[in-house]
Amino acid sequence: MRAYATERTPRDTCPADAPDYPNGRVPVLELEDGRLLLESNAILFYLAEGTHFLPDDRFERAQVLRWAFFEQYSHELNIASPRYWGTHNLPMTEERRVTLEPKRRLGYAALGVMEGQLRQNDFFVGGRYTIADIALYAYTHVAYEGGFDLGQFPAVRAWLQRVAAQPGHIPIKQG
Amino acid sequence: MRAYATERTPRDTCPADAPDYPNGRVPVLELEDGRLLLESNAILFYLAEGTHFLPDDRFERAQVLRWAFFEQYSHELNIASPRYWGTHNLPMTEERRVTLEPKRRLGYAALGVMEGQLRQNDFFVGGRYTIADIALYAYTHVAYEGGFDLGQFPAVRAWLQRVAAQPGHIPIKQG
Repeated sequence: MRAYATERTPRDTCPADAPDYPNGRVPVLELEDGRLLLESNAILFYLAEGTHFLPDDRFERAQVLRWAFFEQYSHELNIASPRYWGTHNLPMTEERRVTLEPKRRLGYAALGVMEGQLRQNDFFVGGRYTIADIALYAYTHVAYEGGFDLGQFPAVRAWLQRVAAQPGHIPIKQG
Repeated sequence: MRAYATERTPRDTCPADAPDYPNGRVPVLELEDGRLLLESNAILFYLAEGTHFLPDDRFERAQVLRWAFFEQYSHELNIASPRYWGTHNLPMTEERRVTLEPKRRLGYAALGVMEGQLRQNDFFVGGRYTIADIALYAYTHVAYEGGFDLGQFPAVRAWLQRVAAQPGHIPIKQG
């Protein structure tokens, strides 16, 4: 099994020379038999089935997906994209300039939704570490690189610490 | 079990007076015991588990999710949003004006990805009708209301017919 990924690439800025997979996007998981699976959170779900990273309970499994879709639609779009523009020194086009403020507002709203959930819960679903936490940790823990200040989100900050303390956690940044 | 939904509301334009559920958004599924589930595609997954609308095979299940995430990130954002602005007569703000052309381009790209898949397959996953088709049918069959022309996507048009011919299909529009 092989995984193709750069750092997860916000898809509005996917390079034209990305591998010629269906959709032209990373990440892609390639199974031993050559079958391909796209979409980061579909890959997480596939890899987690049958492990303690995905609950057996039907409702909890759906809740994991609820947070995975939230991550893609409400979080990644608004928090990862501005960070990507900055960390890759992309030109400030009119589209980026005009959408930056709305993205900032919606990104903070997404962080507020997370804060609300984490005030009462150590992890997003079922009181334990699942792929919902993995999906949301990715861009939350580097949100500051997109100009987001987590100062008003103490429950999110405490959760970031809990995730980073999981067995086997490998930081992508050295602090 | 009760479902709260208007027509699915693109979330960048969710009304401020939406029901005060976590995230302030529809649709929401309320179970008999009062538990709530958000996110349209998480709701579809929950309702489909154990039915023929969701494959038993682990890889096919992940493929269904791959298309569900594609629907949210690559399709809904670019095809449903401009339609919503028009069908609800929303003002053409600077943000909407500047993002319309990129959304059009990315929306046609998403339709092209669907066309590629449907040229070889009657349905998106496993050769049969699943929630991947249900998720993608929703805004594809009214894409013309957002200014999209399906003329160059014959496989998508044939698939729309196949979906509409499913037993129990209830059109939201009378033709």
